[in-house]
Amino acid sequence: MENLLENIRWPEDLRKLPADALPALAEELRAYIIQVMASHPGHLGSSLGVVELTVALHYVFNTPYDRIVWDVGHQAYPHKILTGRRDRFPSIRTLDGLSGFPTPFESEYDAFATGHSATSISAALGMAVASKLRGETKRQHIAVIGDGSMTGGLAFEGLNNAGVSNSNILVILNDNGISIDKSTGALSRYFTKISTSRRYNNMKNRVWNQLGKNATGQGARHALSRMAGAVKSLFFKQGNLFEALDFRYFGPVDGHDVPTLIRTLEALKQIQGPKLLHIVTTKGKGLKTAEAEPTLFHAPGQFDSRTGELIKPGINLSLAPRYQDVFGKTIIELARQNPRIVGITPAMPTGCSLNLMMKKMPERTFDVGIAEQHAVTFAAGLAADGMIPFCNIYSSFMQRAYDQVIHDVALQKLPVVFCLDRAGIVGEDGATHHGAFDLAYFRPIPNLTIASPLNERALRNLMFTAQSGQYGAFVIRYPRGRGVTPRWKTPLELLPPGQGQTLREGRRIAFVSLGHIGNTAIAATRDYLREIGADWDDATHGPGLFDMIYLKPLDTALLTHIFAHYDLVYTLEDGVIDGGLGSAVCEYAAAMRAPGDGSQATDDVKTSDDFHATASAQSPATPHATPAVKTTAVPEIHRLGMPSDRFVLHGPVEALHHQCGYAKEDLLDILRREM
Amino acid sequence: MENLLENIRWPEDLRKLPADALPALAEELRAYIIQVMASHPGHLGSSLGVVELTVALHYVFNTPYDRIVWDVGHQAYPHKILTGRRDRFPSIRTLDGLSGFPTPFESEYDAFATGHSATSISAALGMAVASKLRGETKRQHIAVIGDGSMTGGLAFEGLNNAGVSNSNILVILNDNGISIDKSTGALSRYFTKISTSRRYNNMKNRVWNQLGKNATGQGARHALSRMAGAVKSLFFKQGNLFEALDFRYFGPVDGHDVPTLIRTLEALKQIQGPKLLHIVTTKGKGLKTAEAEPTLFHAPGQFDSRTGELIKPGINLSLAPRYQDVFGKTIIELARQNPRIVGITPAMPTGCSLNLMMKKMPERTFDVGIAEQHAVTFAAGLAADGMIPFCNIYSSFMQRAYDQVIHDVALQKLPVVFCLDRAGIVGEDGATHHGAFDLAYFRPIPNLTIASPLNERALRNLMFTAQSGQYGAFVIRYPRGRGVTPRWKTPLELLPPGQGQTLREGRRIAFVSLGHIGNTAIAATRDYLREIGADWDDATHGPGLFDMIYLKPLDTALLTHIFAHYDLVYTLEDGVIDGGLGSAVCEYAAAMRAPGDGSQATDDVKTSDDFHATASAQSPATPHATPAVKTTAVPEIHRLGMPSDRFVLHGPVEALHHQCGYAKEDLLDILRREM
Repeated sequence: MENLLENIRWPEDLRKLPADALPALAEELRAYIIQVMASHPGHLGSSLGVVELTVALHYVFNTPYDRIVWDVGHQAYPHKILTGRRDRFPSIRTLDGLSGFPTPFESEYDAFATGHSATSISAALGMAVASKLRGETKRQHIAVIGDGSMTGGLAFEGLNNAGVSNSNILVILNDNGISIDKSTGALSRYFTKISTSRRYNNMKNRVWNQLGKNATGQGARHALSRMAGAVKSLFFKQGNLFEALDFRYFGPVDGHDVPTLIRTLEALKQIQGPKLLHIVTTKGKGLKTAEAEPTLFHAPGQFDSRTGELIKPGINLSLAPRYQDVFGKTIIELARQNPRIVGITPAMPTGCSLNLMMKKMPERTFDVGIAEQHAVTFAAGLAADGMIPFCNIYSSFMQRAYDQVIHDVALQKLPVVFCLDRAGIVGEDGATHHGAFDLAYFRPIPNLTIASPLNERALRNLMFTAQSGQYGAFVIRYPRGRGVTPRWKTPLELLPPGQGQTLREGRRIAFVSLGHIGNTAIAATRDYLREIGADWDDATHGPGLFDMIYLKPLDTALLTHIFAHYDLVYTLEDGVIDGGLGSAVCEYAAAMRAPGDGSQATDDVKTSDDFHATASAQSPATPHATPAVKTTAVPEIHRLGMPSDRFVLHGPVEALHHQCGYAKEDLLDILRREM
Repeated sequence: MENLLENIRWPEDLRKLPADALPALAEELRAYIIQVMASHPGHLGSSLGVVELTVALHYVFNTPYDRIVWDVGHQAYPHKILTGRRDRFPSIRTLDGLSGFPTPFESEYDAFATGHSATSISAALGMAVASKLRGETKRQHIAVIGDGSMTGGLAFEGLNNAGVSNSNILVILNDNGISIDKSTGALSRYFTKISTSRRYNNMKNRVWNQLGKNATGQGARHALSRMAGAVKSLFFKQGNLFEALDFRYFGPVDGHDVPTLIRTLEALKQIQGPKLLHIVTTKGKGLKTAEAEPTLFHAPGQFDSRTGELIKPGINLSLAPRYQDVFGKTIIELARQNPRIVGITPAMPTGCSLNLMMKKMPERTFDVGIAEQHAVTFAAGLAADGMIPFCNIYSSFMQRAYDQVIHDVALQKLPVVFCLDRAGIVGEDGATHHGAFDLAYFRPIPNLTIASPLNERALRNLMFTAQSGQYGAFVIRYPRGRGVTPRWKTPLELLPPGQGQTLREGRRIAFVSLGHIGNTAIAATRDYLREIGADWDDATHGPGLFDMIYLKPLDTALLTHIFAHYDLVYTLEDGVIDGGLGSAVCEYAAAMRAPGDGSQATDDVKTSDDFHATASAQSPATPHATPAVKTTAVPEIHRLGMPSDRFVLHGPVEALHHQCGYAKEDLLDILRREM
């Protein structure tokens, strides 16, 4: 029975195997994933947890005609391998390789693109309703969702609607007690109670055995029906949440037991209407180290495929720290001084390093589960009663709480500090995870202060500035990965909102940047100056470099200076090109040409050394008029950033920056060409 | 016992009354609301439903020290009257008058600003945690939330987190079976089951009577504890959803029975931890016509305070239709031709007129409840399997499904048509309800086509254009209220994406508008031409008027023409000034000055008559370069729209437009001054 996997290219090959060969196939599949992941890092733990489920699903269901929606989708590696992508699997998450998440552009077996959590029930319900309308009454629609994702409000909205839909939808609750960190919340506690109820499970097992003897057709349906009866009579005593929502509830069953899964799924296939199968799995199943440390092995990097030991790069003390750790350490430092500070994360304590504070100050740190909307409104409630919540949410996940920021925070001018980790291009996680839109979607919102640090010290100083609460709601966005300053822990300083900084003066070309990406302009400038043999301090050569620090309020005094002294302005932001810094600069350029009093623009250029003065605390746009700055000395403005006409896919950050035209080599090309 | 209300200015006055005077006070309060609302339209039905609850809450709890968060908040009229705002109550929803929703800027009794639904549990939990951290252990935190709001995912996220928080929070579920339209979904069905369970209610009543005899202190707690025991032993047989989430569940009780409410709230005050009280109320209580037709009387306009009869304005056949009705009728027309079309609304069938389709094609029309996120992802699922869903969501509520549009629709290039009703300034509903941000937040998203109709015919034609599915995800935003075209039902025509239209040519000044607000520029121009005695067709007088139709793709050919022929360009949009049309025009102006090949801008102006040609199907921004349009003939650009540095409050639409500087009189002023 060796080398089964080798002959499986598509699910139809799988379906030709005898059922009793499937456990062995699952083991081969698991071994292949471990072997590849050991040297090609990816999402390991969750994929190992659903190997048996994946085999069973493709065996029982007629994919791709039947639809499987993988919630979040980082657990879809075994699915990818079994659906025509085995050979390409080692390319996963690399440039032009397989995506780390399901996407219909890659395979018709990927019924729906995922990446963010809690979408699967709604999507599968949509498909089920479409099938009904199109008369495809035999098609099956399956949502596979983890217990972590189930805490997302969208999942509940989907359940609530599906419960009354009478559609053919099967929700498989993959309960492993872990999202990335340990699952939290009442729902998680509830799942644990179910799985450990001895009385219910005894009864269930008896019915289940019965079911085994009638594995097909009418008999199975009959047995399963008795099973459901058992649920009704016994399980209701614990109050079944899903039955309350008009789902028929089945389980919990062992998600690593292939024969049971197959038997169960076969039977469920014959039951109409919304139903939920609760399976219990182990994250990292089959790799001892991963089972023992599921958070570490969620996406572990390289490891030894035999022992499961992580391969740690040698410790390099000269390395700059990760931004997330600067956040994690600085918030503790600030919270020690300021008793009003609390920390909030929606299920990312390890990812954003708030776990550091959680250890030191458990009563002031809140992991609210995968629930971005709640994280923000909960923060608003805290702020309304005097606290200064630091709410750390990945940039792309902040999209999920957009209204809450507007409606619950900005409108009330509450001093919530939003720390947006993973802003800009994140690399291997790809399109769903790039923090592309935050600058653009937050800039139009009144009462927000929006900043992005050039480096670790600036991050610390922005956090320090924000925690006073006096600037209202405060957004600080910073990227995934490391900064540039090994010795980052400098004394805390206020960075006055609306005031940018001059990194160097130069001639002809100005790079006007926001955030860490400014370091790319610095690096390109260093290279260019080296090429032409000029010094950093020589303002007669090389470009001017300006770090805006704040997108809002915008340092219009600094911009006025730049417009007056440079011919070409390149705005540089690690975010979408329309709506963010580049747009703000274009708007200001237009405003300079269109004085508020309506008179023609004049040549009365405001040269001035006043660009170090504090900028106005207002954004330039006012309802009636544009600012009365008089100059026609507006240079050419080129905007560099992520495109707004296509999504950026996955690959190394540097390669993706180059695709978008703002990697170091691109800036160097500009300097060589234009200077 | 007459005229109790006259002497109640603050809750402390209320608390001096004997408990048996409160039912009479409640009746006076109700009568006052009916009397005022009869001539000062507002949200009537929901406020009438909570009169007794409001009296009981302020009697039992020590407001404002204790916090009450009114979910949605349109039911807070009795609360406003009892908290220092009785005399100003007739000013509600008028310019500079009381807000129609709670807001802390108006009163310290308004603990949290609301307007959108499902926020109250999270906010109250935040406050409860703040109190605990600050050592205020006696403070009470109450969230009052309707059964409709409870279907919002955010409410579930809040419950899930509160369940494990051990915080002092009381959720009052105000169950009237209605949000604006009838509540839908499994949860709603579940609430009905609870309220009608005879066995449970019998038992409950016995315990309740017991409770009455021990109305205070230890005795009450004891009785209530037995009550909870009764819930545990009996009610679990139906599966109690809230107990599953670790809330202690009490009720249902009659929400119009003041003594019972007071007794219950007094007892609950003494129980620590998260608890939920389920009350059953009648929307519109006390006004027969409102009880009979709760949807109609949600916000009924003027009525006869004695009979409850609506005062209908005389039927005027020359009136233009409401945009919502053009949508509601046109979707039926399209759906009859195109079997792929389905309609989706999150709890607003009457508000968006999808109720028309619901009557004609119930199987193709979906009210998913207050669940905007689900509405969008459900639509994505439908589109993934071949349907063309028209998803109608008010602009300000679309903020709640921002990530779903990006992640579930745009990323997959799915042909979902988003119809954003109530876009722009909505008037009396104020800051939480203005559709201010949609143009700005959608423009940066790849794969979206974004349009806004100038009038009813354009709305029809945009819907017709979108339903082909060939332009991918398609956003159509239009305002609240009536259009301008009584005879609107003209044959359907395709409006090619990226192609605007010239309404008239003129001299010197161009108004470049998007959507219905363009009619304001037309009206101002007519007035101006009349003043100077010129004709509409006389291009040597008056401004040029251009209707962009599409924000994305942008008609850059038309803009090129405008830039070449006009000195002053006023962009005009009924939306926030930063990020939308005005920004796009500024960006294009900058792009014209910064040709993509990097050479200096030249005077090679593209005059041409080619502005009627189809515009490029791309937005001007590309990752590497800006378009190679060569001209320096860039005019002054002034942006007109809503401010991005403050929220616009409530009042008549015209007055608010004037505040923002783009009412007809403002445009006329510009013409008089600048022409």
